[in-house]
Amino acid sequence: MIKKVINNPKDVVVETADGLILAYHGDVKKIENSNAIKRTEIRPGKVCLLVGGGSGHEPLFAGFVGENLADGAVSGNVFAAPAPDQILAATKALDQGKGVLYLYGNYAGDNMNFDIAAELAESEGIATKTVRIYDDVASAPLERITDRRGIAGDLFVIKIAGGAAAKLDSLEEVYRVAAKARDLTRSMGVALAPGSIPETGQPTFTIGEGEIEIGMGLHGEAGVSREKMMPADELVSRMTDLILKDLPFKSGDEVCLLINNLGATTMMELLIVNRKVRALLAEKQITVHDTLIGSYCTSQEMAGFSISLLKLDGELKQYYDLPAKSFAFTKG
Amino acid sequence: MIKKVINNPKDVVVETADGLILAYHGDVKKIENSNAIKRTEIRPGKVCLLVGGGSGHEPLFAGFVGENLADGAVSGNVFAAPAPDQILAATKALDQGKGVLYLYGNYAGDNMNFDIAAELAESEGIATKTVRIYDDVASAPLERITDRRGIAGDLFVIKIAGGAAAKLDSLEEVYRVAAKARDLTRSMGVALAPGSIPETGQPTFTIGEGEIEIGMGLHGEAGVSREKMMPADELVSRMTDLILKDLPFKSGDEVCLLINNLGATTMMELLIVNRKVRALLAEKQITVHDTLIGSYCTSQEMAGFSISLLKLDGELKQYYDLPAKSFAFTKG
Repeated sequence: MIKKVINNPKDVVVETADGLILAYHGDVKKIENSNAIKRTEIRPGKVCLLVGGGSGHEPLFAGFVGENLADGAVSGNVFAAPAPDQILAATKALDQGKGVLYLYGNYAGDNMNFDIAAELAESEGIATKTVRIYDDVASAPLERITDRRGIAGDLFVIKIAGGAAAKLDSLEEVYRVAAKARDLTRSMGVALAPGSIPETGQPTFTIGEGEIEIGMGLHGEAGVSREKMMPADELVSRMTDLILKDLPFKSGDEVCLLINNLGATTMMELLIVNRKVRALLAEKQITVHDTLIGSYCTSQEMAGFSISLLKLDGELKQYYDLPAKSFAFTKG
Repeated sequence: MIKKVINNPKDVVVETADGLILAYHGDVKKIENSNAIKRTEIRPGKVCLLVGGGSGHEPLFAGFVGENLADGAVSGNVFAAPAPDQILAATKALDQGKGVLYLYGNYAGDNMNFDIAAELAESEGIATKTVRIYDDVASAPLERITDRRGIAGDLFVIKIAGGAAAKLDSLEEVYRVAAKARDLTRSMGVALAPGSIPETGQPTFTIGEGEIEIGMGLHGEAGVSREKMMPADELVSRMTDLILKDLPFKSGDEVCLLINNLGATTMMELLIVNRKVRALLAEKQITVHDTLIGSYCTSQEMAGFSISLLKLDGELKQYYDLPAKSFAFTKG
């Protein structure tokens, strides 16, 4: 049983939200009748961006509410989708008359609950559009891309969509830009050791000593292969190759790079990974515009990491480069 | 043996530096003949700030080189002080004729090697001053404060000293402000599970299942007590109490708060900690000006966290509030 710094395990989601709101120092507030937060100041008449999903992946999603980012975030229980009535309450709290874009990872529970909320919102006269994020190359073949899961690439899509929602006046246009960012994002992860569920203290999966699983999902979903531990450079080469050939990324492309810590992996390791990713991209004449390395989309204290690439074009770059400020992501 | 994403364990320090420099996208460059980096653009005539210490605590120290932060950082091997000749090479690469402030954690090896480098620099006509950081309340009683170790409070002192070095013209003045920030910073940590050394794969200490050690140091140094795991609120109350009575912090004080992840602790737990720290500070009428929560000063994949408080005055607040940009710390 993994030790965790918690009180009653049944209270972790509510206490996490309380701690997060305090850390925002007034920039966000709680939405009533929902485990959701919204920006304290939302420009009247703006298209709003609502993100969300299961808890347990902190700082995703609620850590990305802020200036030129999401306007609100709704959280479910640990590894469980938020309920439709909670999503609806958040939608109503956000809407400024221009509609709300839903942005979340492509999981069956989230899809169902956000879709129900969208119908309920429509019946109350609030327009919504939905972009499901499915950046995880490991989770289904390209022919079934809409079956893929959403992982750390979420951050890139939120960054771009948040910028678009701050600058563009129509829900259709914000949707178009967010969907383009989603379509140009690819990720691949690897798991070394499991995280654990706060309520039970039990690990999310089992894996042999000296084994890793390439492509394992955020909740322990099966990956592409279970293998013996290998040197960092070999592992990174295999992961990067799977990402590059999927879009495919080509010579002359300009990308943003995210190396995401799934929980317990050290920054030393992530930097060693970065060194090899950059060497591989340089070989292919792919230019890196910006690099993010850290814990953005976690699975409790799971050991492992993912690599995400976002292919930029002029429009996406303009939104990516906007300054942003939230609890977990600040860009000057 | 803990799995790590590395290549040859003997190469981790050099490969980490390579990956870090690439992640800075041209804002820093390697200093020749040293495992050190410096800002690419340093304003001629400025007082320079050099930070450093052993590797293995990433992103400390080299992640905090940048605008209104450190001008350079020098890294030793894992958990080992940088050698005097490496510190000297960094000092010479940084100096703009106004001298160099050394800022590092108070450990015997660092003290010795930075002092030797300071003597060598003086013999080459470069003025230096030194602020040793000793924020860890657990590591010695107040009467022997200069025997205490430096832990995550380093970040606050670097932030303030970096601001002062950007704005003030004399080494003496930058030293004075940095020393004041150090004197007004207090921290307390707790360890739940060990990290491991990359070269050996062996844990940095052993601890029983269900046990924690309050006050344990970044390298497994003994803390104030080994105890059974307890609820978060009780643990945080005990740690915060030890911090508050040490300075002491008083009703009406304004502070910055840092909740630092030692490695493998989840953001969910850190936010639950924040909730309780804020409640305790509110009870004492202590105001929180800013909150940082994340992995700033780690000990490989050690599970645990520390709480740091910096007491502000008007002068420190002015430097704290300056925007800053580095790999691991950005303030808008």
